[in-house]
Amino acid sequence: MALIVQKYGGTSVGTVERIQNVARRAAKTQAEGHQVVVVVSAMSGETNRLLGLASEISKTPNARELDVVVSTGEQVTIGLLCIALTEMGVKARSYTGSQVAIRTESVYGKARIESIDDEAIRADLAAGNIVVVAGFQGVAADGSITTLGRGGSDTSAVALAAALDADECVIYTDVDGVYTTDPRVEPKARRLEKITFEEMLELASLGSKVLQIRSVEFAGKYNVTLRVASSFDDGPGTLITLDDEEENTDMEKALISGIAFNRDEAQVTIKGVPDRPGIAAKILGPVGEQNIEVDMIVQNIGRDGTTDFTFTVHRNDFKKSMDVLHGLVTQLGGGEVEGNDEIVKVSIVGVGMRSHAGIAGKMFTALGEEGINISLISTSEIKISVAIDEKYMELAVRTLHRAFELDKSESDS
Amino acid sequence: MALIVQKYGGTSVGTVERIQNVARRAAKTQAEGHQVVVVVSAMSGETNRLLGLASEISKTPNARELDVVVSTGEQVTIGLLCIALTEMGVKARSYTGSQVAIRTESVYGKARIESIDDEAIRADLAAGNIVVVAGFQGVAADGSITTLGRGGSDTSAVALAAALDADECVIYTDVDGVYTTDPRVEPKARRLEKITFEEMLELASLGSKVLQIRSVEFAGKYNVTLRVASSFDDGPGTLITLDDEEENTDMEKALISGIAFNRDEAQVTIKGVPDRPGIAAKILGPVGEQNIEVDMIVQNIGRDGTTDFTFTVHRNDFKKSMDVLHGLVTQLGGGEVEGNDEIVKVSIVGVGMRSHAGIAGKMFTALGEEGINISLISTSEIKISVAIDEKYMELAVRTLHRAFELDKSESDS
Repeated sequence: MALIVQKYGGTSVGTVERIQNVARRAAKTQAEGHQVVVVVSAMSGETNRLLGLASEISKTPNARELDVVVSTGEQVTIGLLCIALTEMGVKARSYTGSQVAIRTESVYGKARIESIDDEAIRADLAAGNIVVVAGFQGVAADGSITTLGRGGSDTSAVALAAALDADECVIYTDVDGVYTTDPRVEPKARRLEKITFEEMLELASLGSKVLQIRSVEFAGKYNVTLRVASSFDDGPGTLITLDDEEENTDMEKALISGIAFNRDEAQVTIKGVPDRPGIAAKILGPVGEQNIEVDMIVQNIGRDGTTDFTFTVHRNDFKKSMDVLHGLVTQLGGGEVEGNDEIVKVSIVGVGMRSHAGIAGKMFTALGEEGINISLISTSEIKISVAIDEKYMELAVRTLHRAFELDKSESDS
Repeated sequence: MALIVQKYGGTSVGTVERIQNVARRAAKTQAEGHQVVVVVSAMSGETNRLLGLASEISKTPNARELDVVVSTGEQVTIGLLCIALTEMGVKARSYTGSQVAIRTESVYGKARIESIDDEAIRADLAAGNIVVVAGFQGVAADGSITTLGRGGSDTSAVALAAALDADECVIYTDVDGVYTTDPRVEPKARRLEKITFEEMLELASLGSKVLQIRSVEFAGKYNVTLRVASSFDDGPGTLITLDDEEENTDMEKALISGIAFNRDEAQVTIKGVPDRPGIAAKILGPVGEQNIEVDMIVQNIGRDGTTDFTFTVHRNDFKKSMDVLHGLVTQLGGGEVEGNDEIVKVSIVGVGMRSHAGIAGKMFTALGEEGINISLISTSEIKISVAIDEKYMELAVRTLHRAFELDKSESDS
């Protein structure tokens, strides 16, 4: 007998019929001999409806009270799911975040979980109940309702799995797993059977938005076995594992797990600035003050006492970034500003590259053979990102997908 | 400075604009120097929408979980009202039934309030907040959400007023007070400035459904000063008072406070049954077992060792009642069954009649002069009810309204 936490998002509980479908899945898992905790989101559209009512009254609604309003979305779902389970003859009991209690900071709209009381849930599971918990919400020390922010239901599920020491936490969604890249760009993209937490984090932050990143961090930190699967079929999905020994000795098979990309990037460069200690902070300080988020940062070795400094930002922040740099040129008494708002970022991700030379070379060669010019390179332990002209994005993704043989199944290769 | 509890029903908070209107009213009361607690219902239509979702899943939904679902209706309203108050620059803080806590029995759908914790609300009031509480809901000893049943928001308001020792509990509704009778039947019906709890109870149970009867009982028991007023104008409404000395010495003015009526009544009679002790129980026992609610009960003095026994029921239960009585005739070995499902009940209500002879005579005379035949009479200390042919209902109400001079204002007479 295993203890399994299942999480279903808004689309999976979007109608009465889909809630009944979720009830059948949970009941089936229980019938297979497991203890089941189900975490649910609000029915799709409901959170936006509630936010809409609040925004009709105020453009900046009282944050505590906004959480009171929006947390009702998940509360409706837990009740309806338990009604569906009871109707099927399955014992079920619902919990709001307060009832669990999922204790959080006293912050509204984006609270962090501090602790979870697990006694009541354990007792209900022992008594044969399927326990249904409202995702996305918790309770502050003073009893106020808090929410974890959008996508927080994933975090709720992982945190509950950690608190209950669950054997597995399955995040059901409308895709059937994590892919080697976006199938809309590369039709040969393939579902991964396994991926490590680190790879998942890099893929998520780079645009493969399958799971909320905070929940992946949480799962890694608390050693929760996480799986992403479709709520509409019975496939195994993708297992998200620790970077374990097995993975490391299995290098030949999976050097690269996936290819991520970010559209809507822009790069800005300030050239010929005095190469002094603290120059990076001097440049990035005023950028941060303007609430501009910086992604890749590249600084070349200086020449003649000056250096070139480049970074990428979201395309919406391009003009603001250019203005900041022009201001700096005046202030520093020299330099030149260049920018390009027609670039994209393409990244290869894989724990395999950590101990394997030649991955970067293979990547640059493959792109070069297709005539794709690289304007920026940035690397981490398990990721290499390049900035390229946006018109080559699809070609670059498909070229790299083929070069690293991602279309071949793990067992084939 | 007074402490005032205001309760607004579903129609009064049915739209965002109306919620803003309620916020203005509450803020105005606070600006006049009072402490204000507001109790609200779900936005009109919301409870039915939620019940509809549940009934799509189950015809007999799990009662605990149904309360989880429907209690979200009031929770949305308290949040939105606090957002509206904050937007107006007024400090406000919402409470669900659990947060207060309004402690109830562990019964779902129709729980009774057992106690109310008032410390947190008092502290918030002292800090200058308007406190907004979700009506209709409470919390069981195990932390489960309970509801008080339809109309329970009135009960919530009165119970809070009692716990907080409030100076007044104002129930805002879509009528501007309690009338001498239904203005749709008698256009000369007049709003009462005052009415006693006892009269209100008799009028409410007889069909003048302004207030939920349980809340009136509660108000009487805990000595809460209750007022019914319109949420759409600024009229004083009707004050519901204890049956005090002033009232008793003021007999001449208000012998009768109002005229109530119930349509859809039916009467059934069993004639010539053996007049033995316990015969009433023998007849009403099987009726009660069929879940038939009996209203008026009349038994005449027996003749020749037999008696006639008549009672009234809701017209929907007429056939079932007749069947029960036919069965009894067989069982008792004698008697005869008669029935009439085209009757109505008309009642005059007033604490004045308690110490005043001649009221009944005046009533029967007035009806007789109009040729209205009375088929049953039933009396209590402050009420006389008659069953009459349904075709005379409007005539009877108008005749009695005139006979007891209810169209004349209290100060005129």
